[in-house]
Amino acid sequence: MRDPHQVAVAGVSGYTGLELARILLRHPAVRQPVFYLRDTAGAKCLGELFPQFRGWGNAPVRTLSAEAIAESGAGTAFLATPHEASRELVPALSEAGLRVVDLSGAFRFRAGETFTSWYKQPAAPAAWLERAVYGLPELYRSDISGAQLVANPGCYATSVILALRPLAAAGWIAAGRGVICDCKSGASGAGKELRRDLQFVEVDENFRAYGLFAHRHTPEILEHTGLAAPQVMFSTHLLPLARGILSTMYVWLDAPKQAAQIEELYRKFYAGRPMVRIWPAGQLPELQHVAHTNFCDLGFALDSGGERLIVVSCLDNLGKGAAGQAVQNFNHMLGIEEQTALQ
Amino acid sequence: MRDPHQVAVAGVSGYTGLELARILLRHPAVRQPVFYLRDTAGAKCLGELFPQFRGWGNAPVRTLSAEAIAESGAGTAFLATPHEASRELVPALSEAGLRVVDLSGAFRFRAGETFTSWYKQPAAPAAWLERAVYGLPELYRSDISGAQLVANPGCYATSVILALRPLAAAGWIAAGRGVICDCKSGASGAGKELRRDLQFVEVDENFRAYGLFAHRHTPEILEHTGLAAPQVMFSTHLLPLARGILSTMYVWLDAPKQAAQIEELYRKFYAGRPMVRIWPAGQLPELQHVAHTNFCDLGFALDSGGERLIVVSCLDNLGKGAAGQAVQNFNHMLGIEEQTALQ
Amino acid sequence: MRDPHQVAVAGVSGYTGLELARILLRHPAVRQPVFYLRDTAGAKCLGELFPQFRGWGNAPVRTLSAEAIAESGAGTAFLATPHEASRELVPALSEAGLRVVDLSGAFRFRAGETFTSWYKQPAAPAAWLERAVYGLPELYRSDISGAQLVANPGCYATSVILALRPLAAAGWIAAGRGVICDCKSGASGAGKELRRDLQFVEVDENFRAYGLFAHRHTPEILEHTGLAAPQVMFSTHLLPLARGILSTMYVWLDAPKQAAQIEELYRKFYAGRPMVRIWPAGQLPELQHVAHTNFCDLGFALDSGGERLIVVSCLDNLGKGAAGQAVQNFNHMLGIEEQTALQ
Amino acid sequence: MRDPHQVAVAGVSGYTGLELARILLRHPAVRQPVFYLRDTAGAKCLGELFPQFRGWGNAPVRTLSAEAIAESGAGTAFLATPHEASRELVPALSEAGLRVVDLSGAFRFRAGETFTSWYKQPAAPAAWLERAVYGLPELYRSDISGAQLVANPGCYATSVILALRPLAAAGWIAAGRGVICDCKSGASGAGKELRRDLQFVEVDENFRAYGLFAHRHTPEILEHTGLAAPQVMFSTHLLPLARGILSTMYVWLDAPKQAAQIEELYRKFYAGRPMVRIWPAGQLPELQHVAHTNFCDLGFALDSGGERLIVVSCLDNLGKGAAGQAVQNFNHMLGIEEQTALQ
Repeated sequence: MRDPHQVAVAGVSGYTGLELARILLRHPAVRQPVFYLRDTAGAKCLGELFPQFRGWGNAPVRTLSAEAIAESGAGTAFLATPHEASRELVPALSEAGLRVVDLSGAFRFRAGETFTSWYKQPAAPAAWLERAVYGLPELYRSDISGAQLVANPGCYATSVILALRPLAAAGWIAAGRGVICDCKSGASGAGKELRRDLQFVEVDENFRAYGLFAHRHTPEILEHTGLAAPQVMFSTHLLPLARGILSTMYVWLDAPKQAAQIEELYRKFYAGRPMVRIWPAGQLPELQHVAHTNFCDLGFALDSGGERLIVVSCLDNLGKGAAGQAVQNFNHMLGIEEQTALQ
Repeated sequence: MRDPHQVAVAGVSGYTGLELARILLRHPAVRQPVFYLRDTAGAKCLGELFPQFRGWGNAPVRTLSAEAIAESGAGTAFLATPHEASRELVPALSEAGLRVVDLSGAFRFRAGETFTSWYKQPAAPAAWLERAVYGLPELYRSDISGAQLVANPGCYATSVILALRPLAAAGWIAAGRGVICDCKSGASGAGKELRRDLQFVEVDENFRAYGLFAHRHTPEILEHTGLAAPQVMFSTHLLPLARGILSTMYVWLDAPKQAAQIEELYRKFYAGRPMVRIWPAGQLPELQHVAHTNFCDLGFALDSGGERLIVVSCLDNLGKGAAGQAVQNFNHMLGIEEQTALQ
Repeated sequence: MRDPHQVAVAGVSGYTGLELARILLRHPAVRQPVFYLRDTAGAKCLGELFPQFRGWGNAPVRTLSAEAIAESGAGTAFLATPHEASRELVPALSEAGLRVVDLSGAFRFRAGETFTSWYKQPAAPAAWLERAVYGLPELYRSDISGAQLVANPGCYATSVILALRPLAAAGWIAAGRGVICDCKSGASGAGKELRRDLQFVEVDENFRAYGLFAHRHTPEILEHTGLAAPQVMFSTHLLPLARGILSTMYVWLDAPKQAAQIEELYRKFYAGRPMVRIWPAGQLPELQHVAHTNFCDLGFALDSGGERLIVVSCLDNLGKGAAGQAVQNFNHMLGIEEQTALQ
Repeated sequence: MRDPHQVAVAGVSGYTGLELARILLRHPAVRQPVFYLRDTAGAKCLGELFPQFRGWGNAPVRTLSAEAIAESGAGTAFLATPHEASRELVPALSEAGLRVVDLSGAFRFRAGETFTSWYKQPAAPAAWLERAVYGLPELYRSDISGAQLVANPGCYATSVILALRPLAAAGWIAAGRGVICDCKSGASGAGKELRRDLQFVEVDENFRAYGLFAHRHTPEILEHTGLAAPQVMFSTHLLPLARGILSTMYVWLDAPKQAAQIEELYRKFYAGRPMVRIWPAGQLPELQHVAHTNFCDLGFALDSGGERLIVVSCLDNLGKGAAGQAVQNFNHMLGIEEQTALQ
């Protein structure tokens, strides 16, 4: 019988993996975390590879393989690995009896063809896709509690779904009009790959749109808001800062509302969900409020006519958008307090 | 008879005024520019007040008043002054026989009540509002050529109008759907006022929306695109960089189009307008491409269905969004080549 | 008998005060922290004033006065107040029986004239100056343990003293040559005062020196390294980033050394001091390694001749340079583990 | 007979090459500039490769080779190529009769062994090294005027030499003390190579020292200030901004001086050198003052004792530190006004 408090982290070299390490090393319910990389460069512990971890204890580093993790005695694995790697690791680790939180896109969709058409690569077998729970705890925490496999959502998707779901669930979104999701992310969201367009001089004092009509988080947004594809336009932009996603969403309501009604809708929907913070009407969240946290902050502005609504959603793409949410899911899976190690 | 090549610049202490100084000091058709400020702090020339101008000649600095400018012999005045100040200066200088390019909002609207309702202050007399030409040369250059008074457009408004006008003029925008203008600006656009929320630590690594449903550039956008108020949502955001506006616009077309048709529409509309650069389908402009220039760059992405269109517009808020465009207007007023001193 | 675990924080509105709040709200040995400001603007709790604290509990906010704190039952006070305010608060609170950690400069010097000549304002009474312990725990922790009043060091001073003290104590610094301390700080170190030269547009993409031969941290450096004033040149610069101080120090050694000897000197000196991390010869610390931590990282490069040494010191000016070090002092005063709440 | 106004630019793809293009396309004495790259990717003109140049005319782009340039009819070549490439191109182009401004390090030293020992690669033949003039026009303009081959100085070296040379030439630097050059550069100075440590997330909100005791600009500094190696410590740091070098230099004077004497020394030394701007005692230059210019700004602070001096030097590493200075050299070689195209 594996101990779920004993944790393996695969793919620690990216920004998400490092953030996971930062959180898990402080987590009171995590015992002996071990970190796995494709290439350990001869290092034995985390601090040798990443100087910022020196003096934080000596969490071991090992060469990544499904066998190594399975044999380690770990009861839970976090996978901050590429989609292709997760597709192989998840079944192997699950069959070996580990609980898995996968941060890639490989297990986010029930239908393999959704994955294939957006990610342009083979999907995982249907049997495994069906076992995966979409790890947005504010919506699906009861499913997550008993899950053996959780697919951690995309960062943009988390930001948009949390903002639109209450309106969609209430049936307040006008059908004939569009819903626009204009999203802006810091550069850590693009990952650690060496790319010319991510060099400092190319991002500093710059701002640009990318991935229009082609971003892979689109199908997550459609599936978990229930909105129809032609109604939604979703765009992504690169901000000259390291951490954070701010999404601005534009909605026509089906009937005029008061600002107080909007605020009440959100407050009720997220009652008992402390990681989503609702802003009073007339105030808007900012990226600095959520940097280095697991909060998703939601604010809005309503036109005087009561039908045109702008919702602003802020989160840290490495926190609530990735590593923080992964730990939040882990906390639910283990039945411990949701915010443990996340404040 | 005043010489229009002799130039007075009022309000040189803000970022727009300094950018005007930078351009006009290099302008081959400008003779003896004189700079006027409320408070010269005893300085006699520009370099004493603003060290970056040392070694650039010794353009004189004087205390700002309508009388001082009128008596100076200048034939053209640029006003980079607050709305209230421009409202007083424009009639006085115009009556004294100067041509005026006013960079404030005070003369941008035919109807005084439009100004009053958005700017919450008294409008200029109707007779003066009627004389002013809206200084967007790509749309109104023949009017500008003969004008005595040009109202330089708002920075956001320039960015949005240049992007939407070709579509609106062609009647390609679907009537029942919305048009969204999600705009992001660098911090120099907020001016030089001392504000807590513009301190470095508050803007750095931060991003936020502001002025939702209340931004003063809204009526300019409506008037010069011809779109109806309820159809448009316009938002503004503060980027952690100094210069540049990127606007992302979302449009549903009234009928499916090919990307080549969109590109052709824009190319035809802006033929002979070298300061608007059209990007080929599939490529998008970025803020770095337009920083320190007078260009407005336009690019777009069309959904595979051909009905959902995203247009991206980039300009430098101090260049094409303010000082550069003011000089472009000046060049038209004097009948000299439009790009003089702007490349 | 006051309970030292019950904590009052005065001056919470600056960047240091907010960082103190962030640390103390997570501190397991702190009970019921109360935050005091000159102007609470009618707010009852921290989250009302500073939105980033929403959802973190409801720490109360009260109007600042010595009486209010003394009557509150608090046993320890942190003062993140201006020098003038601390000069009044410290005696009042100490006489009321509170332990005090003062983050201003008012109690950092034994000699009142040192304070007066560098700060250009009256010093606190000599009796109080004598009671204060200089709060650099790596050097003076036994004094701090029993102290009723700790003067928290300046941010630049901490950075420089920790780097030079081992060399000075060993007598390795050549007498006839200079010692140069070239220091660079992020903008949060300049505080929250509204100043033109701290506006985003003035700091972004800029870098400048300031305070040459006049910086107030100079006497702390001289006193705690034991170096003579004419030997030392100390400069400060403003970096376009929010948090962090990197100091580059240049020393001629009195006799040639090997790199291994330098490294050993530092390792021995800071043995058992986990908040100072020594870098292996050939590697240098960076600001990102210490941001949001209480570490001071030290690295060095030795010329091939073995006599010219460059030492690089990095810390977070709000962490080890201010609030973090204040809590480290508090931990020593209470006899609890030094790193509590600081990892 | 080749026309020196007809210009070839080799290596246009780096930041220095692009800045050269920007300046030369506006240069009134340059005819038909042609740009050469190793790989043109099928492009025919500059705007196809670098979108920021669209609408600026259609300067042709060709595949780089000595033959192609020699056959082109160009009379002057700018080489913004790596050291190895310049070592081959310079002799070939010079023998073909072109004047050459080389921006690499390959021809900066008379002694081949100096190059070899600092650059770890073979030096150019001695005969060519002897023909090269070191292109610092404020010091050597008469040599540059008649030169066929100019070696453009390093960016850090320009910054330091211009600051120290007046003091060294006057014999005011104390012999027994050190001279410290603490230099900080923006990221464009590191070039366009793809490196992990130059990715946005690694540079943003970060600051670090590098190249201690090993930087290649060291021998230029020693040679052109005349200072002895053991006296000088020179360090380099990476700033989180794109453009600019600020160097802080620390000098002990051989005898006490007044601030006015220091200022006068600099003013006399640089009389008739408009691209070096001297700041009045008590004021210091900043990077923003020189960004996008060809100025080198010098300021200083003198201790009250009159013997300890700090000199601050600012320039744009792509301007006066590279491309701007190359054009300044070109202007001298052609006998045209030094500042042409540089204001």
